[in-house]
Amino acid sequence: MKAVLATPALIDTELPEPTPGRRDLLVRVEAVAINPVDAKVRASLCPGDPPRQLGWDAAGVVRAVGEQTKRFRPGDAVIFAGAIDRPGCHAEAVLVDERLVGHLPAGLSWAEAAAVPLTGLTAWEALFERLRLDPYGGDRGSRLLILGGGGGVGSMAIQLARRAGLTVIASASRPKSQGWVRELGADHVVDHLQPLAPQLAALGFGPVEAIANFSDTDAYWPVMAELIAPQGSIVAIVGNRTPLDLNLLKEKSVTFAWEFMFTRSRFQTADMGRQGEILDELARLLESGALRPTLRRTFTPINAANLEKAYAELASGRMVGKLALAGWG
Amino acid sequence: MKAVLATPALIDTELPEPTPGRRDLLVRVEAVAINPVDAKVRASLCPGDPPRQLGWDAAGVVRAVGEQTKRFRPGDAVIFAGAIDRPGCHAEAVLVDERLVGHLPAGLSWAEAAAVPLTGLTAWEALFERLRLDPYGGDRGSRLLILGGGGGVGSMAIQLARRAGLTVIASASRPKSQGWVRELGADHVVDHLQPLAPQLAALGFGPVEAIANFSDTDAYWPVMAELIAPQGSIVAIVGNRTPLDLNLLKEKSVTFAWEFMFTRSRFQTADMGRQGEILDELARLLESGALRPTLRRTFTPINAANLEKAYAELASGRMVGKLALAGWG
Repeated sequence: MKAVLATPALIDTELPEPTPGRRDLLVRVEAVAINPVDAKVRASLCPGDPPRQLGWDAAGVVRAVGEQTKRFRPGDAVIFAGAIDRPGCHAEAVLVDERLVGHLPAGLSWAEAAAVPLTGLTAWEALFERLRLDPYGGDRGSRLLILGGGGGVGSMAIQLARRAGLTVIASASRPKSQGWVRELGADHVVDHLQPLAPQLAALGFGPVEAIANFSDTDAYWPVMAELIAPQGSIVAIVGNRTPLDLNLLKEKSVTFAWEFMFTRSRFQTADMGRQGEILDELARLLESGALRPTLRRTFTPINAANLEKAYAELASGRMVGKLALAGWG
Repeated sequence: MKAVLATPALIDTELPEPTPGRRDLLVRVEAVAINPVDAKVRASLCPGDPPRQLGWDAAGVVRAVGEQTKRFRPGDAVIFAGAIDRPGCHAEAVLVDERLVGHLPAGLSWAEAAAVPLTGLTAWEALFERLRLDPYGGDRGSRLLILGGGGGVGSMAIQLARRAGLTVIASASRPKSQGWVRELGADHVVDHLQPLAPQLAALGFGPVEAIANFSDTDAYWPVMAELIAPQGSIVAIVGNRTPLDLNLLKEKSVTFAWEFMFTRSRFQTADMGRQGEILDELARLLESGALRPTLRRTFTPINAANLEKAYAELASGRMVGKLALAGWG
């Protein structure tokens, strides 16, 4: 089968097809989407390390199943992000634990569907599990500030938060990304390159009950401490570069939560199957039109040269929404 | 009225009785309990600063009420911790917003009752609001590690956690404090001066779902990161002395929450009245015997000399449970 390996240079290669473990699906990959985690894992490779198969966002068709699988059969169309400690999806056929897999949302292209799992899971877990907001309207009217609204995770989070009835203030700095987050349903847009407190005040907002930081944890640490309401909650996904002064959150009894989408698979938690359920819920929302796909650009086919182009665009920092690759040429 | 002021030296003095604001009660103080916050505020005073009336734990009788009070009448016996930005309870008569006040638990002495509010509120908020454990058994069997089990807050938290059905592993280092936390109902006792992971392993425990750190946040930061379960939660009450590496909690998607008992009064939050409700709930639990008083020693009367003795005992670090002063001599 065709595959792309990072050595760290990306190379097109041929590999033997893997064999499913007991709870695995073997999936024929039709499209993949790219994410900052790819670049992060690639950057961690040293020359001489074993080559790594990157890619944790895919849509495809089940070809074979392990003996203990229950939810899928060969022929089922699926989406998944998978597990960071297993080979990624940059190959014609990949293995994934079925508990991490959802059904393909009807009506989406392979590329649109491949752009859903990693960011959809991250956004859902961040809002509804780490921040413990109610996906079904129980926190209607609560104010959520989303830092990094225009990126992949932000683009899903804005939509999910709006649908949950939250008042969404999303940050975006360029006109293009500001337009995009408005399209996705943000109630208000602020520019995170300008001081945020005066912008929130100008919108008539005091402190916000929740902050989802999909941008830079360190850079916004003091301003998050300033903007968060007493007893409020903050979630972040980007690791800190330097130790942080937690005391800034103490007087307000603030809660800070990390969201790392690979925690469940990495630790094989008892509730790992929640990821499959969340993906199915996201599929229903996409099928009903309650969510719109966040894919913005597709490269064809899936190969080393196109992956390099996609990573270069991601690295530019000017992307809005998601970028995918489809087909094997 | 008699009062004790910190200049920072403690001095016995006479002050005019204060007048209740609209939502205030004027309470005749019968007993006060001491807490680390007293020493902290006292240590923050510089010579030349205005003298400060310390003390945030009291039991007494309502003597007068503001025009907008609803829950209490003159003659009602009450307990409260009050607000850190108002004068404390080291005076014969003090003011407190009625939303922060609970009814005196029947059957407790004034001194026993005065030892309830600050630690009871802190323990309740830490477990059931910040960690979001279910006080009524919904998290039965979840493992909670309490660091600093023998102190005032730990002594309340062990009892509340046990009653909520949690499996409680409490840390205490001296034989006296280990005996005390067992008496309070801890399922297991570990010594926090020895490495914790092997002790938990010896008890047959893997990672714990929740950690309540009532001891030293910095000192236990790496070990908490090691012991906490994926998607687990940590609450702490002691401010960090140095910036901390939050990344240690990232791979497990851990949530960290501060509990500061004065947040609600300090920011006059909309749910400030929850503190009165929690105190009434604690009173019911004490009256039914589901909770036992944590008072261990009483000085009489309330004056500068006895407060100095009580603070010296607190500063020794060898206290278990709580220390109170009663009567005005």
